[in-house]
Amino acid sequence: MEKEYAIGVDLGGTNIKAGLVNLNGEKPEIVLKRTVPTLIPRPAGEICEDIAALCRRLCAEAGIGLSDIERIGVGSPGSVSGGIVHGAENLDFHEVPLRDMIGNLIDEKIPVTLENDANAAAYGEMIAGCGRGARSLVAITLGTGVGGGIITDGRILEGHNGAAGEIGHIIINRGGRLCGCGCRGCLEAYCSATALIAITREAMEAHPDSLLRSVASGGTVDGRTAFDAARLGDPVARGIVEDFIDNLAAGTASVIQMLQPEVVCIGGGISKEGEALVAPLREKVHGMVYPEADIHMTEIRTAELGNDAGIIGAACIPA
Amino acid sequence: MEKEYAIGVDLGGTNIKAGLVNLNGEKPEIVLKRTVPTLIPRPAGEICEDIAALCRRLCAEAGIGLSDIERIGVGSPGSVSGGIVHGAENLDFHEVPLRDMIGNLIDEKIPVTLENDANAAAYGEMIAGCGRGARSLVAITLGTGVGGGIITDGRILEGHNGAAGEIGHIIINRGGRLCGCGCRGCLEAYCSATALIAITREAMEAHPDSLLRSVASGGTVDGRTAFDAARLGDPVARGIVEDFIDNLAAGTASVIQMLQPEVVCIGGGISKEGEALVAPLREKVHGMVYPEADIHMTEIRTAELGNDAGIIGAACIPA
Repeated sequence: MEKEYAIGVDLGGTNIKAGLVNLNGEKPEIVLKRTVPTLIPRPAGEICEDIAALCRRLCAEAGIGLSDIERIGVGSPGSVSGGIVHGAENLDFHEVPLRDMIGNLIDEKIPVTLENDANAAAYGEMIAGCGRGARSLVAITLGTGVGGGIITDGRILEGHNGAAGEIGHIIINRGGRLCGCGCRGCLEAYCSATALIAITREAMEAHPDSLLRSVASGGTVDGRTAFDAARLGDPVARGIVEDFIDNLAAGTASVIQMLQPEVVCIGGGISKEGEALVAPLREKVHGMVYPEADIHMTEIRTAELGNDAGIIGAACIPA
Repeated sequence: MEKEYAIGVDLGGTNIKAGLVNLNGEKPEIVLKRTVPTLIPRPAGEICEDIAALCRRLCAEAGIGLSDIERIGVGSPGSVSGGIVHGAENLDFHEVPLRDMIGNLIDEKIPVTLENDANAAAYGEMIAGCGRGARSLVAITLGTGVGGGIITDGRILEGHNGAAGEIGHIIINRGGRLCGCGCRGCLEAYCSATALIAITREAMEAHPDSLLRSVASGGTVDGRTAFDAARLGDPVARGIVEDFIDNLAAGTASVIQMLQPEVVCIGGGISKEGEALVAPLREKVHGMVYPEADIHMTEIRTAELGNDAGIIGAACIPA
């Protein structure tokens, strides 16, 4: 029988976040969360020691022993498979056997799992968030970049090199806008917050009379500016939002045509627009993918767990 | 222990092809193949009777009993999962429980498996064709349309509704050429034989002095015309071929970014161009997907089994 708790760790370039997750409730939930700075650059061994210390600290503060923990799951940036971080640029990790390094620092025989952080977050949304009850889910995360995670038949799709799920770099407009990856026309070049801000700024300069400038508080454009001005009826902003959703619909349709998951989960900062974003997205995508009425359609939903998805997902991935 | 033989059936709109497959050789191989016309439209039950009769005939002609057969695998068009053809327009099948219908017609207790035909062909290429030894493969088939099949971790990815793997309908150029599916910018609208012929014809009219007209024997443009004229140095034809490969590269890059399979298998009529197609494709895709040198790259290869892939794959899919 599974124990009551697991620990999920979200290893990021800025912070290491760890949560004690209760597995036995109606759905897995974080009951205690602690964060320490990652302090890069430094050797992987030191980061592992901090992760192990965080795990011990969570147990101590919760008044339980490490032996009461079912497993420790770690989500790391980069390409990850077989317990190894093959490459994570921001951490300067190359072929780092993170799973065993952490395992060796934990005295008790507790299984340690290692997964890519975006995959862990997708798993979390399926287990405890907007995909509860589903067996397949694709997460599209609209943050600084566009991230992704793919779950098929209950299992994370890692790809043969641990680098699958790069939904931000599917090409929706060959030869189009330049992406940070060096290619043109990637989804990320249109639907990341970074891209939306750049597109909003371009429109602001081209249309100085639009409401965009007054909506951008103190002149600061962010991922909400265009959505806010569109709600006020500004036609330029409406055009930006419509383009944004059209581009996201193209990427989402491609994902569905390829994978047909039960759920597509839209997360990240821009997903806070909620139904203003997801309702028209749903309509556009369904029209593109499902011309026949009698096929079981993919549900497009907003992510529910926010930044906790990675911790909960990492804690819940079976060893 | 597995028996020596299995039967693979490729159910098409025109013909039902069945092959006796030897499972015990160096690689699975068809030892005997028989074909009967599908004769649509007619009831699914009659088609199943013909399939069962074909299986008995194969055994009789090979001098073995049905009880010497490990399994009967059937590949059908349309969305397929759980032994059911949910929808196959060309056969007018809707929620047809084809697996059990065939099983009931086979007296002995031989397992019957049912899979989508493109998925079965992808599986065949992985087991006995260009993907031998791999555990993950994506097939992109450049025929009348653009088909696809996805194998991850040794298993076919069906999607929750049996309709996954529609690689022809990922969008590479939002708002671009109209596709037969009603959307704009699908891979199929650029890289099917149908699209290539249409594009070649358009170029022929726009450039009456190009070599395209003389290469098209008797005025008939086919999927080879542009490639042949490009080989003769015609600049218009070279432009068509380069665009074709750029578009295919965009689709292939999207597939790899999402799934990172060990092998991408390029099949269908146009794949007969061989390295003239695949060598530049490989170069373009690798430049797009793998800017870092140290990641294990997806191999892009030409399909090896041609039309036999579906039969061999269907025969080899585990029950």
